Amino acid sequence: MKVGFIGLGRMGQGMAGRVLGAGHDLVVYNRTRAKAAELEKAGARFVATIAAACADREVVITMLADDTALAAVTGGDGGVLAALAKGSIHVVMGTHGVDIIRSLTHGHASAGQVLIAAPVFGRPDVAAAGQLGIAPAGPARAVEQCQPLFEAIGRRVFDAGSEPAGATAVKLANNFVMGCAIEAMGEAFALIRKYGVPPSALYEVLTEGSFSAPAYKIYGKLIADQSYERPGFTANLGLKDANLVMAAANAALVPLPSASVYRDRLLGAIARGNGERDWAVIALEQARASGLD
Amino acid sequence: MKVGFIGLGRMGQGMAGRVLGAGHDLVVYNRTRAKAAELEKAGARFVATIAAACADREVVITMLADDTALAAVTGGDGGVLAALAKGSIHVVMGTHGVDIIRSLTHGHASAGQVLIAAPVFGRPDVAAAGQLGIAPAGPARAVEQCQPLFEAIGRRVFDAGSEPAGATAVKLANNFVMGCAIEAMGEAFALIRKYGVPPSALYEVLTEGSFSAPAYKIYGKLIADQSYERPGFTANLGLKDANLVMAAANAALVPLPSASVYRDRLLGAIARGNGERDWAVIALEQARASGLD
Amino acid sequence: MKVGFIGLGRMGQGMAGRVLGAGHDLVVYNRTRAKAAELEKAGARFVATIAAACADREVVITMLADDTALAAVTGGDGGVLAALAKGSIHVVMGTHGVDIIRSLTHGHASAGQVLIAAPVFGRPDVAAAGQLGIAPAGPARAVEQCQPLFEAIGRRVFDAGSEPAGATAVKLANNFVMGCAIEAMGEAFALIRKYGVPPSALYEVLTEGSFSAPAYKIYGKLIADQSYERPGFTANLGLKDANLVMAAANAALVPLPSASVYRDRLLGAIARGNGERDWAVIALEQARASGLD
Amino acid sequence: MKVGFIGLGRMGQGMAGRVLGAGHDLVVYNRTRAKAAELEKAGARFVATIAAACADREVVITMLADDTALAAVTGGDGGVLAALAKGSIHVVMGTHGVDIIRSLTHGHASAGQVLIAAPVFGRPDVAAAGQLGIAPAGPARAVEQCQPLFEAIGRRVFDAGSEPAGATAVKLANNFVMGCAIEAMGEAFALIRKYGVPPSALYEVLTEGSFSAPAYKIYGKLIADQSYERPGFTANLGLKDANLVMAAANAALVPLPSASVYRDRLLGAIARGNGERDWAVIALEQARASGLD
Repeated sequence: MKVGFIGLGRMGQGMAGRVLGAGHDLVVYNRTRAKAAELEKAGARFVATIAAACADREVVITMLADDTALAAVTGGDGGVLAALAKGSIHVVMGTHGVDIIRSLTHGHASAGQVLIAAPVFGRPDVAAAGQLGIAPAGPARAVEQCQPLFEAIGRRVFDAGSEPAGATAVKLANNFVMGCAIEAMGEAFALIRKYGVPPSALYEVLTEGSFSAPAYKIYGKLIADQSYERPGFTANLGLKDANLVMAAANAALVPLPSASVYRDRLLGAIARGNGERDWAVIALEQARASGLD
Repeated sequence: MKVGFIGLGRMGQGMAGRVLGAGHDLVVYNRTRAKAAELEKAGARFVATIAAACADREVVITMLADDTALAAVTGGDGGVLAALAKGSIHVVMGTHGVDIIRSLTHGHASAGQVLIAAPVFGRPDVAAAGQLGIAPAGPARAVEQCQPLFEAIGRRVFDAGSEPAGATAVKLANNFVMGCAIEAMGEAFALIRKYGVPPSALYEVLTEGSFSAPAYKIYGKLIADQSYERPGFTANLGLKDANLVMAAANAALVPLPSASVYRDRLLGAIARGNGERDWAVIALEQARASGLD
Repeated sequence: MKVGFIGLGRMGQGMAGRVLGAGHDLVVYNRTRAKAAELEKAGARFVATIAAACADREVVITMLADDTALAAVTGGDGGVLAALAKGSIHVVMGTHGVDIIRSLTHGHASAGQVLIAAPVFGRPDVAAAGQLGIAPAGPARAVEQCQPLFEAIGRRVFDAGSEPAGATAVKLANNFVMGCAIEAMGEAFALIRKYGVPPSALYEVLTEGSFSAPAYKIYGKLIADQSYERPGFTANLGLKDANLVMAAANAALVPLPSASVYRDRLLGAIARGNGERDWAVIALEQARASGLD
Repeated sequence: MKVGFIGLGRMGQGMAGRVLGAGHDLVVYNRTRAKAAELEKAGARFVATIAAACADREVVITMLADDTALAAVTGGDGGVLAALAKGSIHVVMGTHGVDIIRSLTHGHASAGQVLIAAPVFGRPDVAAAGQLGIAPAGPARAVEQCQPLFEAIGRRVFDAGSEPAGATAVKLANNFVMGCAIEAMGEAFALIRKYGVPPSALYEVLTEGSFSAPAYKIYGKLIADQSYERPGFTANLGLKDANLVMAAANAALVPLPSASVYRDRLLGAIARGNGERDWAVIALEQARASGLD
């Protein structure tokens, strides 16, 4: 398939590498070419403009950091909306808000193009290993057409329906459930510390019991060890996502009281200068609120 | 070991059966003898009073439904405190509040006896299969002495330290983390339903991803299916536990904002007549609060 | 009227003084006689036992600090329940929980006596000036009978119905609304401080506008000035009341999310050693959670 | 003073009338001329474009419904930024978000103009009577220059400092404190209703005691009477403001847990079709969450 790939951060590099490895014709674009070096060696063609990454492509994938970047890449004279051929597909794989996804859905439809939102689940190492989860939503025929790409990129494809904003909601919901789990652990660990119990005891009870899953193993360990210095995902990014899920919930008139709880802890953590630590640092805020300094 | 066992509910029967199966000398007591039938067939001796279940026993285990039952069994003329021999051990394995555990810790110490709190993790079928987790806390020597019993009853023993109330806190913390996970799913499923996404999609994303653990598989399924009629654990019991963890947190001066969130949903659910449904019914409250009736 | 008065703290002294001043026959009891000195000078008769404060009295008023004190004074051989004559009335004027009020309602009824709950609104100086608000609830005839006492003690009598626990709920609700107002100001002042606005500006906007009431004038001033050292009501007492209102709400199956918010701040404040400061110190917790240290 | 006035809703008409009444030279603009009829009769000059409302004016006042309207009026070729003379002052008196105020602050500065944010406190009838509160913030000299206008429009001017966004924060904080008061009453009234107490009893206790202020008198009455049909301020507008204050708090890294509580109730109320009722309808949501349907 003729594929364009825009956005070669750590996630994007791994994902584009999987597309290339599956034998597709891959053109890549990134603001700084250096990040494309590995892919170029492996056979990808680097282009200097977004428009060139769209020209004659059946599918263009974007994997961008935030809504601002997505707006910049898609809009304007040389943007994806202007450059993509009629009938071609734009697959948005980054984590974005429902507003911009809805706006792009309409924009592409007006231009005779198709939008699929296909957010991914997993970290960069998982992406490089082709083990991501992918939840695409969009017109059924287009999703089917992209199936080979999704299978190349990920381990498991979850059908999120025909409405792109729905896939966005699923992704934001997943991250929200994660934030709640971290917050719950932050509170739980503060509680048992106050009772003189070693954090490792609760960590083992949880992760060898009903919570034997990556979310609890990874973040429970950080909290039990009070180790927030090597972030897998920063508090600042956590706040960005919390705001996105609350905006999505606002638009759909859904109260999310649990989101408010961990978002408040994130605000506190960032206000105290911990924005670039791992977002599990909300457990430190909780500890402070419990007098455990 | 000479063991007394008081409290033959569904959990207690399974646990007592494991003690008996490991070859210990077992005396059992329950208010209604019928529940001891299986155990008597298997060789346990039924006694008609609490005092008789304590006399000449090295260890007496209680597995009771709530603090009221524990207070009734331990206090008064024929209660455990009065009947247990000096040097003997009372192992409290039910889920209780920190107040009563602290009070019993002092009571047993004054009487020259020893208290261990050893709450268990798992449901009745898990108990019958000897697969419970157990988190004992108490004087090290006594805990060591009971180790064969814990190994007979459970799959895994977690050291919760030397303070019985600490084990209580661990158990309450575990149930609290569970309540938070259910609440988070209730909110998340309401959100994606509002975006037209089938609940099964989010269920799969969660349970095949970062949340591949029993808590999410069991309760996520109930919520996705909106099936609350066959309770594993009722909303009323959930509220009891929520109040216990908030009382424990209050005593230790720990704010638990996430507990307030799901406790509020439980209150709403019970107020609407859903107290005897599965406590995952808080997701129905969330759905209603989102206009999804 | 023949009146007994039990509990001569700062509130009780003022209230008993009003009863005496209105010409009633007053017997007073307090654990430490010293606090009765002024009243004795003014003509009250001090007695050495609770029973003596109940004997031959038409009405016995209790004004006690908490549920423990009320339980101690009412129960046991020489307690109010045992000593009060049939047909006599016990007027509980302290702030208590609904559980103990319901229990006393039944206890007095069984003993052929009558319970009225008549909580008061105002501080000691207000009590001494006879300017309290009073919200009595109980059997209509008994409430009518006590009307002269209420009019002696307070400025305004609010009819809270025929169920004593209802009056309790009104009192707890009032204090809850106060806690919410303080919390809201704590959050609002943190916000405007972050925008470089002098706290006095918000204080004036509020108290010269929609919030021109004592709650905002008194507590808004403390918060604007960050002055918590001379408590009118301590954080520890605030927590006691917060727990009472949440227990009342729990019993009635009413979620009180706003109570959880300020209760969490109180727990944090007390955990940091501010339990004996004015409960407006929750604004300091809020400021800290906002990075304003 | 030569004044332009843009935005003749119910508030704007009253405010412009006060400016005119104080003898200033007033030009008015509104999308629909009909709303200017009264003012024109009284001597104001209606102009057909925003640019004409800015030309040769020392001060232009905008009183607009939301950020979208403000952006539309200020931006573009014929907008306020383009049309206002160097040195002239734009006084924003509507309730807006901090982002747009900050953006306008910079925009006007770049254009050699001055921005003052001067939000007002009070409803249309208060505006017509010249009894509004006004909290201006901006460069001291400009604020001083506008003082005669503020005195014409309002009863009381509160100095909110030199940073326009600060005045915005004060206005949003005031409305936030209002939302919290309404929410607290909603919860409190649900509680006492469950105890069988007539709502009027709590209403009187509050408004004749510590809460004898308009916020409680107005909204307490609506809640006690369960009367939400004639909105002074709708739930939809309440949500708009709640989102503005949360955005302001997010930008300043201030957690506002109380805002989340009443915002969640607003979302529920709107989700159930009550968006155009008075925002006190959140008390109905609370009642429902308490099983009081």
